[in-house]
Amino acid sequence: MQIRIYYEDTDLGGIVYHSNYLKYCERARSEVFFQNNTTPIIDGAHFVVRKMDCDFLSSARFGDIIEVSSNIKEIKKASFILEQEILKDDKIVFKAIVTLVLVKDGKVQRLNQSIKKSLILLWDSRC
Amino acid sequence: MQIRIYYEDTDLGGIVYHSNYLKYCERARSEVFFQNNTTPIIDGAHFVVRKMDCDFLSSARFGDIIEVSSNIKEIKKASFILEQEILKDDKIVFKAIVTLVLVKDGKVQRLNQSIKKSLILLWDSRC
Amino acid sequence: MQIRIYYEDTDLGGIVYHSNYLKYCERARSEVFFQNNTTPIIDGAHFVVRKMDCDFLSSARFGDIIEVSSNIKEIKKASFILEQEILKDDKIVFKAIVTLVLVKDGKVQRLNQSIKKSLILLWDSRC
Amino acid sequence: MQIRIYYEDTDLGGIVYHSNYLKYCERARSEVFFQNNTTPIIDGAHFVVRKMDCDFLSSARFGDIIEVSSNIKEIKKASFILEQEILKDDKIVFKAIVTLVLVKDGKVQRLNQSIKKSLILLWDSRC
Repeated sequence: MQIRIYYEDTDLGGIVYHSNYLKYCERARSEVFFQNNTTPIIDGAHFVVRKMDCDFLSSARFGDIIEVSSNIKEIKKASFILEQEILKDDKIVFKAIVTLVLVKDGKVQRLNQSIKKSLILLWDSRC
Repeated sequence: MQIRIYYEDTDLGGIVYHSNYLKYCERARSEVFFQNNTTPIIDGAHFVVRKMDCDFLSSARFGDIIEVSSNIKEIKKASFILEQEILKDDKIVFKAIVTLVLVKDGKVQRLNQSIKKSLILLWDSRC
Repeated sequence: MQIRIYYEDTDLGGIVYHSNYLKYCERARSEVFFQNNTTPIIDGAHFVVRKMDCDFLSSARFGDIIEVSSNIKEIKKASFILEQEILKDDKIVFKAIVTLVLVKDGKVQRLNQSIKKSLILLWDSRC
Repeated sequence: MQIRIYYEDTDLGGIVYHSNYLKYCERARSEVFFQNNTTPIIDGAHFVVRKMDCDFLSSARFGDIIEVSSNIKEIKKASFILEQEILKDDKIVFKAIVTLVLVKDGKVQRLNQSIKKSLILLWDSRC
């Protein structure tokens, strides 16, 4: 998934404001669902970030086109873990290990077999 | 209402990104309600901006403290109009005429006498 | 120019937070330059919004794909005026009349013939 | 440092969009400098987040007032590490270990004795 950097993404330092990289990761996660004609909202339940270990390795600038990748690292009973990277010209700008949980009405849901299977299928079907 | 400008508010031009002034105006509108121990959400209905004529007259920078004012200009059957200004050191940075409507389940609501009275009271009670 | 709506774009009302439409308009303006392998920063000068009259006519939601158009309405000595529209399924969600000025070191620049010509060429070359 | 949650901070899930907690942490870090009549920009150098391990433990909602704390954990040769927490009614909503570096013209600067001393003094002077 490719993303262009606009004025709104930058700050006075001339580079992308740090928390925006988390937004780009979320866009990429949502897009995995949209590209498969589905949505990340499952029966009113949302995927919520529970933990995110972030490395800000370099920086993107106005006009840059960055690329966001995401790979499943592990699927547990009630959470799944992604490895996400943001690249600019094949150089890693940002990487993160993201733990997501499925939340409905404020409660964490178990990831049943059907949801686990969907997640694997969705992530496999990305080219 | 006073607001500090942080990194997130600026862009690479070194000044506040233009659309953020609309956010500050919204913060000030919400704060009128909060300061009176109430909320801008009335029986599940939200105030929604229908029209906003904006003048960007000057610019605020990192670390600045700006002040947002809002005054009722007119209350109509189904909308109310505010005049909002953002000042920095007594100089106008931004001003807007904002038309708001009350929307519930996607439908614009009439502003009944009780709501009109509340709005006037709320705005009068600001010091 | 097409834009997908993500979580970050929405607010608790379930629709796009109003000031984000101004961001999408800015993305579309910048993209006119990028698509022509140039940049909206001209010799250190930035285009700055001086005035923006906004009509919020409908609303976009999570997952929607919106389309942003921009047409030159007038080019003056020191400003140029765009008409921008945001469409969802051919329905107008947002429209604005945007007055832009070119600012360098805090001072508004005259739009000389070369810049005027570039602006017209750029906007004509969009498909 | 207290922060009110506004519409802009929430997403369609009704809670604060996850990456905004990083913004609040940055506001709190900047405010440590501002409260001491100084600025986080030192001779043109900016503090940049190099690493941030984030735990999203609970969630804040529209109208909530949250409190952001930050404590120095370690000061190294070229980085310093903060422990930041965001509380709502004395309950931890978010916590992070933040590694910051001082960057000038794209290069990481050593933290000399004078800067180290300033950082300790600034953080000690918070009440």
